[in-house]
Formats: sequence, C-alpha cells, structure tokens
Amino acid sequence: MSGLFVTVEGIDGTGKSTQVRRLAAALRAEGREVVETLEPGGTALGRALRELLLHTDGPVDARAEALLYAADRAQHVARVIDPALAAGAVVLCDRYLDSSIAYQGAGRSLSADEIRGLSLWATGGRLPDLTVLLDLPVAEAGVRRARKGEAPDRLEREDGAFHERVRRAFLDLADAEPERFLVVDARQSADRIAARALDRVHALHPASDAAHGVSGGR
Amino acid sequence: MSGLFVTVEGIDGTGKSTQVRRLAAALRAEGREVVETLEPGGTALGRALRELLLHTDGPVDARAEALLYAADRAQHVARVIDPALAAGAVVLCDRYLDSSIAYQGAGRSLSADEIRGLSLWATGGRLPDLTVLLDLPVAEAGVRRARKGEAPDRLEREDGAFHERVRRAFLDLADAEPERFLVVDARQSADRIAARALDRVHALHPASDAAHGVSGGR
Repeated sequence: MSGLFVTVEGIDGTGKSTQVRRLAAALRAEGREVVETLEPGGTALGRALRELLLHTDGPVDARAEALLYAADRAQHVARVIDPALAAGAVVLCDRYLDSSIAYQGAGRSLSADEIRGLSLWATGGRLPDLTVLLDLPVAEAGVRRARKGEAPDRLEREDGAFHERVRRAFLDLADAEPERFLVVDARQSADRIAARALDRVHALHPASDAAHGVSGGR
Repeated sequence: MSGLFVTVEGIDGTGKSTQVRRLAAALRAEGREVVETLEPGGTALGRALRELLLHTDGPVDARAEALLYAADRAQHVARVIDPALAAGAVVLCDRYLDSSIAYQGAGRSLSADEIRGLSLWATGGRLPDLTVLLDLPVAEAGVRRARKGEAPDRLEREDGAFHERVRRAFLDLADAEPERFLVVDARQSADRIAARALDRVHALHPASDAAHGVSGGR
C-alpha cells in the first residue's frame, strides 16, 4: 500500500494554497488520510531555511540558493513526505521540484538538468504522481498579489520579465511530462479548478484504494 | 596573478584555528596579503547555516546536512575565497571540502564521491593548492577539547568510534592526493607545525610572487 503524492505549482498569485486547502477538504470528506504541506518550510529545519531564503539581505549565490532549496527538500521528503506516503496518505504539497527548476533553473542562471539532478539526489528520486499547474498571465497574478496586500518578499520583488520566464518554464515542464501534469487555467473559478484536480486524483487513486489506505493508516 | 588557497583540516582538538592564526601572522610579517576564514560560517549566510547545523535539535537528514554544508561553501567561495584569490591573496581556511568528505562521507552514510561531486558543483571546481592535515589520536584530541572547557556541539557529542572513522577518512584522503596534502603529527609543538606549513607555502608561492601580489592587491 502506498499513498499519492500531489504537488501544486505556479507563479505567486495563482491560488496554490487555496487549491491545496480545497483539495484537502474534499479528500478528507471522502474519508481519505491527507497531509497538507509546502516548500520551502515543510519542516522545522525547512522553516528556518525559508526565513533565510526569503529574507536574507545582500546577494545569495545562485548555487548556494539552489543547494538550500535542495536541503529543505531532502529534510521534507525524509521526515514528512515519504513517511506519509508509506502510511497510505494523499500528500498535497504547495510547490516542489518544478518550482526549483522554474525559478532557479530557467529564472536564474543554472541549467534545468543541474537543478533536477540536485533535487533527485536530495530526495532519493522522489517525483510527484500528479502535478497541478495553475497557469495565469503574469500581469493578472501581480494584481492578485497586490490585492492580498502582503509585503513582497525577495523573489516577489523580481520584475515582470523574470516572472514571465518562470511562467514559461512551468509550461515547458508540463509539455515535457504531460502524463504527470494537469495544466489548469487559473482564471477559472476556484470551484471549477478544484473539481478538475479532484477528478484526476480519483483517476489515479480510486476510492477503494483510499478506503484501504485509511484502514491501514496511522 | 593569482593567490594561494590553503586549507587546514583535522578532527576537533587538533589545533586548526591556532595554526591558521600563526600562519597568517607569519605570512603578513613577510608582507603578504592574507585572508583568514573558516567553514562552516565564512559569510553572513554561512554563519546562519552554521547555527542551524551545529544547534538544530532533532534528526537532520544526512543529505540535507550535506546540502547545507555545500550551500555554505558555494556562498563562501563565490563571495570570499575566489575574489581574494583573484586579488593575489593567500587564503587560509579552517576546514573545507575534506571535512565534508570525512564527516559526512566516511563519518556518516553518504559516499565520498557523492559529497565530493556536490562540493565541486557548489564551488565551480575550486580545490585547495595545499591542505595541511593535523593528525592526532582521537583520545588525545578529546582531552584537548575537554581542556578548552567548551560545551560540545552536536558533532562533538558523537562517540569515539565516529571520530576514529573521521580521522581515518582524513588520512585516506591524504594518501590519495599526496601532492596536495601535508600531513603533520599534531603532537609536535605549535611552532614546529607552523614552520613546516610555512615551508610548504614558500615552496608553492615564492616571496617574489608574493611581493607582486601585494603591489597588485586591493
């Protein structure tokens, strides 16, 4: 018995955390064991790293940044994700490998292959069963972020051209692995998006498996 | 014109920081530009990571730990070591790549090749010109550490067998690269050790080069 590993990806302002919450509620209502988590910061070590990564003043070397995200991921997979999957849970993770490739690989100066290789080494090769990519024009995502009224962190202060490269990188990743990705137009209603994601989860992890998962859960 | 990169290695209690200070003083007295530094913690980012690494409670995944040391090193080389070498300085660094291999590779469960590959990726392939390995029986190093009266950090609380594996790993690294390593019996006087290290620096970086380095320095 093993669970299902679902990641939700996209640039800031596309509604990732909303979708994680909705999916979690819907799956729990079906009696499934669900673990909601996020990167960076899914563990105590990771939260300390998240502070460093988002709020460090002065230049952070691109390779140092990539290694810190990989360290967060290594700890997260070893302590949270792998144990939850082994116990049969559905793991819903806000950002994972594809964010690293899109932001550090395409967004900055390192190659996608290097970032992917680093992440796979960090996690013992753990890849999602399903990745929901919330796609939104960069200008629209910016309006949504501004509406939230939150102070932008270091990554969010990057300019529009940067976010455009990141959005493009996510779409390229989805093109390269169509069986893993579900690309959703994030201008749709949150209800509609959640329904599409839930359909895909059901296809990958039918309710009978899920019931089995619950009976054998922790 | 380029400087000289010297690392000082060995288990805790072998006198590494003493030797870095002595070498620095001797080289400065000759008119050389010297940068003294250390790992982990040679940059602001690195110092924050050092706190995390040495004082985090609870288990840190072995790969996460290796990635954090590599991140520290990436930032350190990019911001401190490479610029100093480019300006012609002698860089004296308390711990570097070989500590990662000895502690995380041989000391823990990862392979030396993995750790070395990670570090070389992190630093763009930066290796020391000279590595002074201070070798001391584990029991004697323990007595010296106790004499300093400092509270042991997480690594120092590891048992004697662990330190013995680390000591052995350092010696194996020296055997594999005899041209880079100077292995010194750390039971000798600090003066005698410093004189041997200084001789080797002179052989690698004659005074005429050094004078050129100073005139062209920052």
